[in-house]
This record gives sequence, C-alpha cells and structure tokens, in this order.
Amino acid sequence: MTTQQLIDQIKIKKSFLCVGLDVDLNKIPTHLLELEDPIFEFNKAIIDATYDLVVSYKPNTAFYEAYGIKGWISLQKTINYIDEKYLEIFTIADAKRGDIGNTSSMYAKAFFEDLNFDSVTVAPYMGKDSVEPFLAFENKHTIMLALTSNEGAFDFQTLTIDGKELYKQVLETSKTWKNSENLMYVVGATKAEYFTKIRKIIPDSFLLVPGVGAQGGSLSEVCKHGLNSNVGLLINSSRAIIYASNGADFAEKAREEAQKMQLEMAAILKAATF
Amino acid sequence: MTTQQLIDQIKIKKSFLCVGLDVDLNKIPTHLLELEDPIFEFNKAIIDATYDLVVSYKPNTAFYEAYGIKGWISLQKTINYIDEKYLEIFTIADAKRGDIGNTSSMYAKAFFEDLNFDSVTVAPYMGKDSVEPFLAFENKHTIMLALTSNEGAFDFQTLTIDGKELYKQVLETSKTWKNSENLMYVVGATKAEYFTKIRKIIPDSFLLVPGVGAQGGSLSEVCKHGLNSNVGLLINSSRAIIYASNGADFAEKAREEAQKMQLEMAAILKAATF
Repeated sequence: MTTQQLIDQIKIKKSFLCVGLDVDLNKIPTHLLELEDPIFEFNKAIIDATYDLVVSYKPNTAFYEAYGIKGWISLQKTINYIDEKYLEIFTIADAKRGDIGNTSSMYAKAFFEDLNFDSVTVAPYMGKDSVEPFLAFENKHTIMLALTSNEGAFDFQTLTIDGKELYKQVLETSKTWKNSENLMYVVGATKAEYFTKIRKIIPDSFLLVPGVGAQGGSLSEVCKHGLNSNVGLLINSSRAIIYASNGADFAEKAREEAQKMQLEMAAILKAATF
Repeated sequence: MTTQQLIDQIKIKKSFLCVGLDVDLNKIPTHLLELEDPIFEFNKAIIDATYDLVVSYKPNTAFYEAYGIKGWISLQKTINYIDEKYLEIFTIADAKRGDIGNTSSMYAKAFFEDLNFDSVTVAPYMGKDSVEPFLAFENKHTIMLALTSNEGAFDFQTLTIDGKELYKQVLETSKTWKNSENLMYVVGATKAEYFTKIRKIIPDSFLLVPGVGAQGGSLSEVCKHGLNSNVGLLINSSRAIIYASNGADFAEKAREEAQKMQLEMAAILKAATF
C-alpha cells in the first residue's frame, strides 16, 4: 500500500484508528477456546465488527509466538483474512525487529514477502545497516521506534547527547538513510508534550502512536501537537477495544469502543478541515 | 541451565565456541532440498558433526521466520533435537526482542517456555520494563545488545552521553535491574579494543561475541581483553563453520572448521591456566 492510499482511506473512513490484535488466550471469551483456532476466530470477529471504523490492524508478534507453531498459523490466517477480505486495510506487524544487514533482510522477507504485511516495526539500536534492508521494499513501510510509551523510554531514549536527546538523534540520523521516505515512527501517546519537538524534525512522516487507552495517553493532546497536513497519525488501541467485553458480546462491545474513538477522530479531522 | 553448568562445560570441552545456525536455503547443499525439512536436516547434520567441540548453538530466528510456518517448525525441531540428544548444550535464541512489559512477557514465554531455550537475545532501546520480564525466569539467561559487530553500531551505540558512550550507559543501567544476575551481553568481536573498557563495568558477566570469522574479528584479540576468571566468553561463528562446504561433505568440513577454533580456544584456555 502506498502512503497516499493510506491517507485516502483515512479521509474516506474519517478515522486514523489502528486496532492492536494482541490476543491473550487468558483474556478472550471462554466459549472461543472450544474452537480449533481461538486466536484466529477472535481476530476474525473483531475485524468483521470494526473494519469500517479503522484504517489499520496491528498484530503484535509476541502474542502469536508465545503459542508456538499454532500461534504462527493464527497470525498467518489473520493477515491472509485481512488481505483477502479488506484489502484497503493497512497492516502492521508489530515485531520490533533489527539485526545485522543480512539478518534484517531475512526479517524483511518474513514480514513483507512471506506474510505480506504492509509494514513492520523495527528497533534502532543497531543503526543504519539494520534498518535499510527493510527500507528497500517498494510500497512497504518500516516503522522505527523513536520515543516509546513505556516507563523504560526514559532509561535511554531521553538521555542527552551533545545537547540533543537520543530519540531526536535517532530521528535525524534515520532521515539520511537510503529510501528513508519509507520510514514511519513509533511515538508514544503518553509523551504528548514531545510531539511538537518531533514534528520539527519529521514534519511529514506518519507516526504510529500506542498508549492511548490502557496506557493513559490522550487522543486530543496527541492530535493537537502531532497532526500534519496529511493527518500523519495512526492511533493504536489494543486492550481498550479488543477486551471491551469478555462475554459473547465481545465483538459488539469492541465495535462500540472503536466507534467512540472513530467519532472523536472524525470530529478532530473536521475541526482541522481535512 | 545454570551459569556454573555452562562454565563446567567450557572446561570439560576446552571450548567456548557457539555455532550460529543461520540457515539459508540458497546456501545449503542442494541435495538436502529434496528432503521434507531441509533446514532441520542441515542443522541435525551440523549438530551431530560438531556437538563435542562446541558449548552452544544459536539459531537466529530471522532465518526461520523468513520461511513462515515451515521455518518455525524447523526451529522447533532443531531445539527439541538438541534438548533431547545434547542436554549439556547451552541454547541461544538469537531473536533481539524487546517491547513493553506485558508484551516482553509473551516473548519470554515463547522462547523460555514454548521453545525451552536456555537464553534469548534482547534489544535495550525500550529500557528496564522491556527487559525485566525476561530476567524473571530462573536458570534462563537474557543476552542484551551492548556493542554490536556491525557498522551501524557507530550510529547510536558509541554516541557520548555526559562523557559516557551509550553502550556503557546501557551496561551500567542494566546492572540496577531486578535479577540482573541473569544478564549476559552481546559485544562484537570487531570492536576488540572496547573489551577492556567493558570488563571494567561488567567484570563477571558472560559476553556473547559475534563477528569472528566472516565479519573479520580476531579470536586472540578478543580473548586478550575479554576473558575473565570464569572464561566469560562465548564466541559465535556462523557462516565460516556451517557453510565451510556446500557439497556432500558439508558436515565434515564444518567439523574441521569448528575443530580449528576449538584447538585455538584450548590453547588460549591452557595459557590462561583455566
């Protein structure tokens, strides 16, 4: 999917919502556990109930790997289901990968070719040659960690290097990499006051924003400082939507939560005259 | 496996060699491609030919994920094979994972419980709460990236923060984390001159050292500056050993290369009077 196609979808759906498919068998409705593939059945129900309100789904690979081969099969079935039925959806493999060049190429092959995701999240610690293999794929997007939503973000990301915090250094350096137009960035909603600084460095890039909802970030604050002329934000919500209920009505309740966020987003987009 | 058991194995085998099982179907002998699971058959042959010369095997997950579900099955068969036949081997999942706390817990479950690896590599960028869930597992080891062997290591890892390079900050901060005694660190052999500085911060920790061989690092230089009173080093070699030949004699040739390194290591251990 091209960036322009993503922007078009945001405008059509009046939504820049991404739903995180972080499926924990201990949290899903128990009646699903009797089915052959509870994780896929859960995802399928959530997707069918919310696809018109969201522009993106983001399975976090950890939640699939934890169930071994079965989990990997559920992941593949989920991405195939979205690809076949809802081609307009921007898919994100939240994998936070990164390794030396020849190894990152294998990860890129895994997520962009074997699983056919539109994008994958990566970690910056190993630098340029750990990220560029992902950037080489046309119409695929590489979403690099910049400033994350967790407490540990303050351990290293905000340390000051020659007067500049590490996450800013990461943003600036990444702009010099080959095919850097294929980069997007992870910026946590819990750090809303940082968005102004971040937009000075990367005014045009899309930001994937976790941390709204369960982690306490504010949608309106993020939008106030983070929106750009192409919207430029994907707001992720996982637990607040997918676990809105653990009863038989889980998909319906997930839709209600997604709808609330979509309506807020529509109002924000209208106010910003998109 | 406990750290003491690993040290004992090093002394028994007179080897601190780790073989990286980074299997690329384009590089393995073509006659294996006719078998049902070429990746597992390749690994099995390499393991059977080298197990007495090495203390550790390290599959890099990227090379398995690139082949989707089939690859994940090959990974599981490989780790099960080692566990059943060569219990004395220290197994490393080279996965470079790291995410917010509840997600890192799922990764820990994937590698320590589902696949039963002795250790897993992790990335430090997201800080404390992204690593501590791994450290909570008893007799399991978490190998964190400190200073890597690739060019991109100089992009961020060696930047100076308040007079101290980032990789040093990572080492020092990590010592304050809960269950930090379960930490080991990745330090690239291509940065041999840094080992003295690193040993000042973490004198007792085990270091996993990639970059000897194909990437150009020197075994003797690394040992000169990196050995501690418990040896404290695991030297990884992947391509130089597993792709020593791509003919029918690949396992035999891999053994020859592993044997060369083991003999060098035995001489180094003898000179250091271990």
